Amino acid sequence: MADNQFQLPAGFSAGGVYSGVKSDTSKLDLALVVSDRPASAVGVYTQNLVKAAPVQLDRERTPSDRVRAVVINSGCANACTGQRGRQDAERVTAHVAEALSGAEGVAPEQVLMMSTGVIGEHLSIDKLAAGIPQVVADLGTDAPAVERASRAIMTTDTVPKVRSRTVEIGGRSITVTGVAKGAAMIGPNMATMLAVVMTDAPVTPADAQAALSDSVVESFNCISVDGHMSTNDTVLLMANGAAGGEAFEGRDLALFRATLLEVCEDLAIAIPADGEGATHLITVEVHGCATRDDAIRIGKTIADSPLVKTAITGADPNWGRIVSAAGYAGVPFDPEEVALLINGMLVYEKGTPVEFDEKAVSDSIAGSRDTLLLLLLGEGQATARFWTTDLTAEYVRLNADYRT
Amino acid sequence: MADNQFQLPAGFSAGGVYSGVKSDTSKLDLALVVSDRPASAVGVYTQNLVKAAPVQLDRERTPSDRVRAVVINSGCANACTGQRGRQDAERVTAHVAEALSGAEGVAPEQVLMMSTGVIGEHLSIDKLAAGIPQVVADLGTDAPAVERASRAIMTTDTVPKVRSRTVEIGGRSITVTGVAKGAAMIGPNMATMLAVVMTDAPVTPADAQAALSDSVVESFNCISVDGHMSTNDTVLLMANGAAGGEAFEGRDLALFRATLLEVCEDLAIAIPADGEGATHLITVEVHGCATRDDAIRIGKTIADSPLVKTAITGADPNWGRIVSAAGYAGVPFDPEEVALLINGMLVYEKGTPVEFDEKAVSDSIAGSRDTLLLLLLGEGQATARFWTTDLTAEYVRLNADYRT
Repeated sequence: MADNQFQLPAGFSAGGVYSGVKSDTSKLDLALVVSDRPASAVGVYTQNLVKAAPVQLDRERTPSDRVRAVVINSGCANACTGQRGRQDAERVTAHVAEALSGAEGVAPEQVLMMSTGVIGEHLSIDKLAAGIPQVVADLGTDAPAVERASRAIMTTDTVPKVRSRTVEIGGRSITVTGVAKGAAMIGPNMATMLAVVMTDAPVTPADAQAALSDSVVESFNCISVDGHMSTNDTVLLMANGAAGGEAFEGRDLALFRATLLEVCEDLAIAIPADGEGATHLITVEVHGCATRDDAIRIGKTIADSPLVKTAITGADPNWGRIVSAAGYAGVPFDPEEVALLINGMLVYEKGTPVEFDEKAVSDSIAGSRDTLLLLLLGEGQATARFWTTDLTAEYVRLNADYRT
Repeated sequence: MADNQFQLPAGFSAGGVYSGVKSDTSKLDLALVVSDRPASAVGVYTQNLVKAAPVQLDRERTPSDRVRAVVINSGCANACTGQRGRQDAERVTAHVAEALSGAEGVAPEQVLMMSTGVIGEHLSIDKLAAGIPQVVADLGTDAPAVERASRAIMTTDTVPKVRSRTVEIGGRSITVTGVAKGAAMIGPNMATMLAVVMTDAPVTPADAQAALSDSVVESFNCISVDGHMSTNDTVLLMANGAAGGEAFEGRDLALFRATLLEVCEDLAIAIPADGEGATHLITVEVHGCATRDDAIRIGKTIADSPLVKTAITGADPNWGRIVSAAGYAGVPFDPEEVALLINGMLVYEKGTPVEFDEKAVSDSIAGSRDTLLLLLLGEGQATARFWTTDLTAEYVRLNADYRT
């Protein structure tokens, strides 16, 4: 964390404590992020039909122009828990509202919730209720406070994930800071990719929703570890306007959107970079498609192929697996126009094998944690990037040897 | 093989030899299946845009009413080999036609070809040309001859796969016999699921095509090992009418179609049952869908989830992974109406966890190579079955440690 310079946007505080939901007492499991004034708050949620209770709750409470806090627990996903799960999530937000209420009062509806962990177990409401005053007391605005919050949302993550940018927009210094967790779409009985992004930029709920939705398409929707979509996936954005001034429009809004995308992309890449058991972060770049949707679809199909992943695990320049994965993505293209580069080295062109130095390509894969697969098609100008992990015996061990 | 009673349909012979394409001289790598008279021949081919040369060739030559032989080599897929690959495939079929030509003559167009093995390498035409007279000399009609053919098409398969049924249709004894290979959609740089089904039933090319296409939908299209679609997948049916009589119609045709489906299903299940590194054959049964397509889509999504596969590897009754996989299949359903049984034991019902004996479910998974996941929805009457393997560290090792 020391190398990653970051700060909270104005008006925000964060904290993280151990409440007892996780069995390991050396960990943190309850995080809180608070804005000192009502903020525009919008979310992008899992498209899984089976939505966890906190996802259902947040979907009802966003978009909003008056959210004050997001409470996040790890260790229990509160998913597949029926009506009781919904009531539990509401009770937790009510406890937070009560604990935060000063002179002006905070309503439960001004608090959002995210959960990650075991599916099918009920929240330990008593433990969380006892932990909430502690995490309120823990709130701070410095880097250690943000790090505690980011650690409290981890499940099988090996590193906390915080990314931040500060830019000058319309004469004001604007900070965008996000925390995220995720190491598998669902890890060993754990769940989920979660992120909350805070900014002091003045942004209306409608503009915030559009900016977040568009950013997610090019960031969190372009990563995978195992292709398994969680019941709890949530990305929240809070914009409290503490930097001052009128809500952004025009060029200012465009600059804010670009900054938000950068932070989302940084956070998103951090997830497969920390993928369970992973020894490589694989970037799949697809160029020359008719549409961006086509490019994403091909990138995702290559990224999700266990045979492509295991080839990278083994530092095997097995281009046939990559080309054949593109071929079943469901996107029409002329196979005779395809070229493929692995770490910058051409291995396939115009439908036929190319003479290449297999050892050099293999060494370049083995020698770095990052692998770049660059596929060129001849259908148009659209491009996309997709990030994934390799697939290792350790991933299987983590997910097979874990017992519920 | 001894336990699996099978015979060739009348008029067919088969054989398998070692031609030198594979480096391991203890293996077989060249198979031939011959009908002593022109046969209706139809195929179902990979939907991968990147189609191997023999797939391109067979697609042009089927449907047909005069096919005499199918030649199959293993060890080289002849995929991604451009124009030279096409010419090579044509030359091999010409060699077969010449070797088979008696008084009546066989044209190259009467010979089909299938290939499986390394992608991106050219066929060793000289070795195959020398092997063809040997495999013609090896042709026989007994069980050992069929077994040699089925062994000659294996790549990472651990067992040869032959299935056969004999039934009485319209007063005639009809035999349907198929050989198949496949252990991963693409194995360690090897490729493909191949099958050739022979019958002495009298069936027109049009009826044969419809029967095969429909059978494949419910058999070979309902299996997966790793979800990676090969460039070479091919299922061929040859019906030579040697059983005598007019082409089947009406009830006789329906009975033939049912028999063909049984043989295709038997062959299809044999593939994940022999999946690379697999310790379980998982059957996913989906009931209560609005349409059969919905049921297949949900079954395939569950079957392709690495988290579901690794749960079974670890004998972990982790129903949350199964229910959440169903939720992202892209099929609308009411999550509150879902029930799930693992090996007959209810673990989830109406959107909430059910009390169940975790040890009993875990023991039932650990104690058998077969696992049954039965998902009940409340959307309609359509059902489907899908077969897959678990995912083991051995699969990763096979596919990562292999080097091209």
